[in-house]
Amino acid sequence: MARECSVAAALGVVGEQWSLLVLREVFLGVRRFDAIAEATGAPRAVLMRRLRTLVDAGVLARRDYREPGARTRQEYHLTAAGRELQPVLTALMQWGDKHLAGPAGPPLTVTHAECGAPVRATLRCEHGHVLADTGREMQARPRA
Amino acid sequence: MARECSVAAALGVVGEQWSLLVLREVFLGVRRFDAIAEATGAPRAVLMRRLRTLVDAGVLARRDYREPGARTRQEYHLTAAGRELQPVLTALMQWGDKHLAGPAGPPLTVTHAECGAPVRATLRCEHGHVLADTGREMQARPRA
Repeated sequence: MARECSVAAALGVVGEQWSLLVLREVFLGVRRFDAIAEATGAPRAVLMRRLRTLVDAGVLARRDYREPGARTRQEYHLTAAGRELQPVLTALMQWGDKHLAGPAGPPLTVTHAECGAPVRATLRCEHGHVLADTGREMQARPRA
Repeated sequence: MARECSVAAALGVVGEQWSLLVLREVFLGVRRFDAIAEATGAPRAVLMRRLRTLVDAGVLARRDYREPGARTRQEYHLTAAGRELQPVLTALMQWGDKHLAGPAGPPLTVTHAECGAPVRATLRCEHGHVLADTGREMQARPRA
């Protein structure tokens, strides 16, 4: 029987192709369909479906906007639950930066707005110990 | 033009369906084809392709093993690069635990082996400041 696990559950929401790239764009402030399509490269029909899935899952929310002389359109915003996917995106980005970036280095840098230092998704326990990215100091246990 | 970004690059390696669940199993010590197939629920033909992709990408490595009286088979191990995907899995798991777990609570708990405290993928800057999961205190900048 397949293992019951929240990784699988989370991937059920954001694991389809393009979904995490769509969320990356909304995090970066790109909110409109055409702009998301261009920045991700997702085919429009697929993008339409992904946005619907993400709205239905409560990760994105639609809001109306209207430019002068145009009809009402919709843009996409992160919900509170959607915002909490930031550690997933940051963890993927730092892995890609380290293992796949070209000679020009990471295409995007993320920093702490207050102090300017680079931000990483770090394995850290509730007692404040920082663990290596390899997770070698971690133990996993199924629910009793 | 699509945005150049290490999230997209990382998803090019681990973004296909089943890939992250396969890696979860190997992290949990499940190394053999049949056992990975059972624990993930991935169809065998798809699993075969995913394992090949992950080996080709340098995330998994094959090793021979042989049980008494049986032919030589192969099992899968994480490479150093593969182990560094742990923050991605942990971040997905904690999001699923918070937003999707049923009334019985998280199916799997991860703790710091040394002190026993729960481990999270935490946004943390190089100066040691811990940021909220929402990333609201983060700034992203394209490479100059």
